[in-house]
This record gives sequence, C-alpha cells and structure tokens, in this order.
Amino acid sequence: MTTFRITLAYDGTNYVGWQRQAAGASIQGLIEEALRELDGRRVVVIGAGRTDAGVHALGQVASFVLARTIDPDELKRALNGHLPVDVRVTDVGMAAPGFHARLSARAKTYHYRFCDADVVSPFDRQYVWHVPGGLDVDAMGRAAEWLEGRHDFVSFQTVGGRVRSTERTIVRSLVNRPHLIDARPEYGSGAGVVVYEVTGDGFLRHMVRAIAGTLVEVGRGRWPCERMRDVLVSRDRRQAGPTAPARGLFLVRVEYADL
Amino acid sequence: MTTFRITLAYDGTNYVGWQRQAAGASIQGLIEEALRELDGRRVVVIGAGRTDAGVHALGQVASFVLARTIDPDELKRALNGHLPVDVRVTDVGMAAPGFHARLSARAKTYHYRFCDADVVSPFDRQYVWHVPGGLDVDAMGRAAEWLEGRHDFVSFQTVGGRVRSTERTIVRSLVNRPHLIDARPEYGSGAGVVVYEVTGDGFLRHMVRAIAGTLVEVGRGRWPCERMRDVLVSRDRRQAGPTAPARGLFLVRVEYADL
Repeated sequence: MTTFRITLAYDGTNYVGWQRQAAGASIQGLIEEALRELDGRRVVVIGAGRTDAGVHALGQVASFVLARTIDPDELKRALNGHLPVDVRVTDVGMAAPGFHARLSARAKTYHYRFCDADVVSPFDRQYVWHVPGGLDVDAMGRAAEWLEGRHDFVSFQTVGGRVRSTERTIVRSLVNRPHLIDARPEYGSGAGVVVYEVTGDGFLRHMVRAIAGTLVEVGRGRWPCERMRDVLVSRDRRQAGPTAPARGLFLVRVEYADL
Repeated sequence: MTTFRITLAYDGTNYVGWQRQAAGASIQGLIEEALRELDGRRVVVIGAGRTDAGVHALGQVASFVLARTIDPDELKRALNGHLPVDVRVTDVGMAAPGFHARLSARAKTYHYRFCDADVVSPFDRQYVWHVPGGLDVDAMGRAAEWLEGRHDFVSFQTVGGRVRSTERTIVRSLVNRPHLIDARPEYGSGAGVVVYEVTGDGFLRHMVRAIAGTLVEVGRGRWPCERMRDVLVSRDRRQAGPTAPARGLFLVRVEYADL
C-alpha cells in the first residue's frame, strides 16, 4: 500500500466541482475513474479543498492509497493520459503513510479575480467577475486587512454550512492590480484585472466568494472599508455582500507542515 | 453614410473562422447580424485578416459603412451587447471615406504559440500547440531570421491558394520564450511557452502555420536552421514542415499608413 500526493490544475468551467455528485462530472470522480483503471479497484481520492462548481484550481492537492507500487512519473503520465485536457496533474509524489490532503493541510491560498474594465478580454471571460465602472483598489485593500487574524467568520458562511467551529485564522488578505507586464496585456488578459489574495488555515463554505462580494461594494464606493470590520463582528450573513460568481475563484496553493 | 473602423479580440475556438460560410458561426457573420439589427439593413463587414477556423485574434480590424450616424462609443456598447462574450469589440472609431480594413492595411503581426513543457496548463489548452520534449529556441530564431526581407513564399502556401503574386515582405520574424514574469506562471499560463512573432505586408493562405510547422522541426533538432532558407528557395510546399494547428495562432495587430 502506497500513499500518493498529487498536485492538480483545472479549469472548473465544465465541472460540478471537486466532489463526486449524483449527476455531472466532478474532478474527484474523474481522478477516481482514472485510478480505478490503473489500480484495478475502487480508490478514494481526498482533495485539500472542495472547490464548488465553476471554481478553478492552479495548485489543488489530493491524496490516495494504491495497492500496487507505481513510479510517480509513470503515474503522472498515466493519469494525464486518462484525464481530459482541462484537468491536469502537474506533480505526483509518494507521501508518508497517513498523509491526508485535507486534514494534513496547514494553509490554503485562494485568488479571486475581478475585472473593472468596460470590456472583458474574451480570453478572461471564464476567469473573472466583470464589475465595470472602476474599482478603488486601495479601499478594497484596507477593507481586506480587517480580516487578518483569528476571527469568527460566520458572517461570510453560506447558510447551511455545517462545521463545528466557524473560527478561522487568516494570515494574509490583500488586494492588488497586477502590473501590466505580469498581466500579458497583449493577450488582453489582465486589462482591468484586480486580484484578492487570501491565505488561511481553513475556509467556510463560500467564504472567499462572500468576502469578494463585500470587497466589490467597498471598491465601488458604496460601503466604507470599515464595513468589513462591522460585517465580521455582526456575525450576520445578511450584513456581508453577495456571493461572488464561481468563475473568478482559483485555489492557488496548499501548504503542509512537512514542506 | 459613415465609414467605421473597429478593433476586435476573439477566441476562435468555437468558430468556423472570420469569413461567413454556408454552415457554422463565423465572426464576420456575427458582426453583420448585429449591425443589421442596429442599422436596419444588410451591412457588409470587411476584415483585415481572414482568420481560419480556430484561429484567435487580439487586434483584428474590420471596416463597414452605416447609413445612420451613431456615436462610436454607443456603437461599441451596442455591438458588445449583441455579440457573444468570446467576441469583443475593443475599439470603435470613424474612418475616412474609402477606408478598407484589408486593402488599406500596411502590416499585420501574428503570434504562433508553442508549449514544450510535458504538461500544458488547462488555461492554455486552446491557445498553444503542444510539442513536448523541449524546443531549441535559439535554433528556431536563426531559422526564422531567414524569412526577413522580400521573398516568394509559395513554399509556405497551402495548395489551392489563389493569389496573383506569392511575393511578400516580412519585416520581423523572431522566436522567443517570454520571461516567466510576463507569462503569469502562477496561472500555469506561460510555462513552457515559446512564441513565434512575425510582421509582414501580407500573408498567403496558411503561411504562418506552415512556417510554425517548419520551425518545430528545427526546434526539435530534426532539421538544421538553414533548412528554412532551402525551403524558401525550393518554391515547393512539400519541403516545408506540416501546417501547425490553428489554436496556436493569434492575429495580434494590424497597422495602417494613417496611424
């Protein structure tokens, strides 16, 4: 029995999300099907983050146990041979027995991408939330800062989330407009793009998207940046902004204590 | 009667190409339909470059004449309101009477994008030709240089192209691997990407893709860079490499004498 740890990038546009569901293609389901063919038996794959329908990943991490021994590079090639081209395994390694992609994770980083230009590049259409009319990035940044630290984030949780505690620690919460050189303006990608970056030890259901929806109200000048603090202390989901669309959200990175 | 000039960006993945065809959605057809609704009569739209099925554009230019007078900004909004999100009008202006997007064009710039990494980012899957195993960019650059100047490019023309002359002038023909900072490695976009950039006064049918197919043979070390010169002087399409896939090709920019 060998425990494996894989890193994945995927375009979530055509999927029902990470988790296997009764209907529709899920990322977890695709990987489990590929492994069943390779290992000859049912394999359960654990993902670090249960991304929702339409959410993308640049560095999702997953773990599973195989009965047979297989070289990691060979496994990477075999998985990519079975998976569709919008889901790619970028890294495969063996992990210590007991490694669990979700429970062993120490921190996760998400990006939420907005576009405030009047026209969204066709190459960004599935990767941003279009909020034309200009965003005040400095005000959004000041609002985002209020979230750093250990807080009860229940105001940013979609009703119906069932977790024991709604306290989480955010170590990094900032907003910036990538330099045009980073943004490849020639490809239209990046014109008007504003990125919210958040790193924390865990996230409640729809939490990053509720924060993004709140940041937009601040960025449009409808709410002062202090509103973020007020939402936080209110412990009332109705005080926060709307849940931002899935297509702007990327699971960027998952960190583990052993790395 | 007012002559307009518009700039377009589009993801060509879902289209039969620029030109109206008996079956399938074309970019020209979409714009003509949108203008018919706005102008109340049939409008013919001329494109600077007749991009093939699956070819993308960052800066295609088109021209047309409207019976009614309309503010360019209003026209831009109206067109984008009618067009699907993978086709965007990025600029609209009035042009001098007689302006013709194709005949008035002085130079066009295309990019052809390759990816030589073992895994293509899911976010690049429709925008590169995957040639795993590594490309020798210096050798490709030396081969590309042979094309600069005025030459008969018949060796790079798909048989069946009907033009009076197959002579064209290439003013810029180079290959580079964009710096990782340009390539947004965090989004997986740009890892392993190699770009061929070519500017010329005109291009024959499939010419850039036949050049790209030849460059790959050089980049893989199968042909020496001098092969490019030999292909050029042979005036024989069979001496060049295969026609590279449409998805790696972008019409980047069109230049006019008045700008």
